[in-house]
Amino acid sequence: MAEQKATNVHWHEGDITTADRNKMLGQKGATIWFTGLSASGKSTIAVALEGVLYEMGHLCYRLDGDNVRLGINKNLGFSAEDRTENIRRIGEIAKLFVDTGVIALTSFISPYRNDRDVVRELHDSGGMDFIEVFVDVPLEIAESRDPKGLYKKARAGEIKGFTGIDDPYEAPNNPEIVLNSHEMSLEEEVELLINLLHDRGVLPAV
Amino acid sequence: MAEQKATNVHWHEGDITTADRNKMLGQKGATIWFTGLSASGKSTIAVALEGVLYEMGHLCYRLDGDNVRLGINKNLGFSAEDRTENIRRIGEIAKLFVDTGVIALTSFISPYRNDRDVVRELHDSGGMDFIEVFVDVPLEIAESRDPKGLYKKARAGEIKGFTGIDDPYEAPNNPEIVLNSHEMSLEEEVELLINLLHDRGVLPAV
Repeated sequence: MAEQKATNVHWHEGDITTADRNKMLGQKGATIWFTGLSASGKSTIAVALEGVLYEMGHLCYRLDGDNVRLGINKNLGFSAEDRTENIRRIGEIAKLFVDTGVIALTSFISPYRNDRDVVRELHDSGGMDFIEVFVDVPLEIAESRDPKGLYKKARAGEIKGFTGIDDPYEAPNNPEIVLNSHEMSLEEEVELLINLLHDRGVLPAV
Repeated sequence: MAEQKATNVHWHEGDITTADRNKMLGQKGATIWFTGLSASGKSTIAVALEGVLYEMGHLCYRLDGDNVRLGINKNLGFSAEDRTENIRRIGEIAKLFVDTGVIALTSFISPYRNDRDVVRELHDSGGMDFIEVFVDVPLEIAESRDPKGLYKKARAGEIKGFTGIDDPYEAPNNPEIVLNSHEMSLEEEVELLINLLHDRGVLPAV
């Protein structure tokens, strides 16, 4: 019985490459790196983009605090050193996804320019596509949204080192795209991103 | 022009789930964890399995020393603590791939039973499939292969803490499958694995 099952085994000469997997998936793996203040809209946009890409038949994976901070990076805290290591590891994981042919969507505040540039360089050195999406809203708007009450706690001194309050957010100098989520509809944002992905060859030409 | 391109945007209600991605890929994500001595045949089998799965239209990704030790784990050495952290991180990364719907193939000596069991538990707790493949060959056979001359260096004392020489290999108590690569053809091994993947529901029933 066992032997019967596997009679369709076809050997493949040589290693399977990223190009092979991209071809199978009909896309080119890439990292779409959302950066911006807490409550700027990073995750909302990433979730919406993921849904649209899924409906188009594309394979994405979202890396966020839930699956990273509670998993591989659960042994990291919030010191400057640990924040840098947090972002470095996320960058390395995103690279593995790009190598697999997957479109990796990362949603982290990632406030330090140098940390993000390290991730960009990691991708560049591997010939991989890194798309930095700056979700740019004024602090007062992000703070007025405050869905988790984090700004309130930071203002009250209950959270220390909170980005925008007592820790800096360093805006990207040359992001691939800037989304002002307070002045655009979610649909507009997603359309701009989809168009960018076509232009970059992550998605096939239409 | 830009707006024309994205007129096919279809929204998706709710988050995309692992089940959605599995359905898209026509498979169920799983970790196939190869463990065994250096030169036991782990990578050879993983590469062959990957090729066959690719020909069947399935998406795999191999995690090995090249893409892990030189990337995310490049800040780890070979102390007992670092080895344990090395395996933990690989396990967490494999989980992310399983969550994506990908079949992750890992090829690491991973000599300590407890480290592997931690990874198994990580998968079990997330309801994810972990398939431990023990590539079991006698030390003298692995040593006689010695493709990279590592055993020779270990015997000469040039490498310290080498598994099988001056560091233990702890065999799995209950691996999902044992492959005696010195007594089986590569084709037999791959067929056994393919059958196992069908039986586990990682690959669709035939």
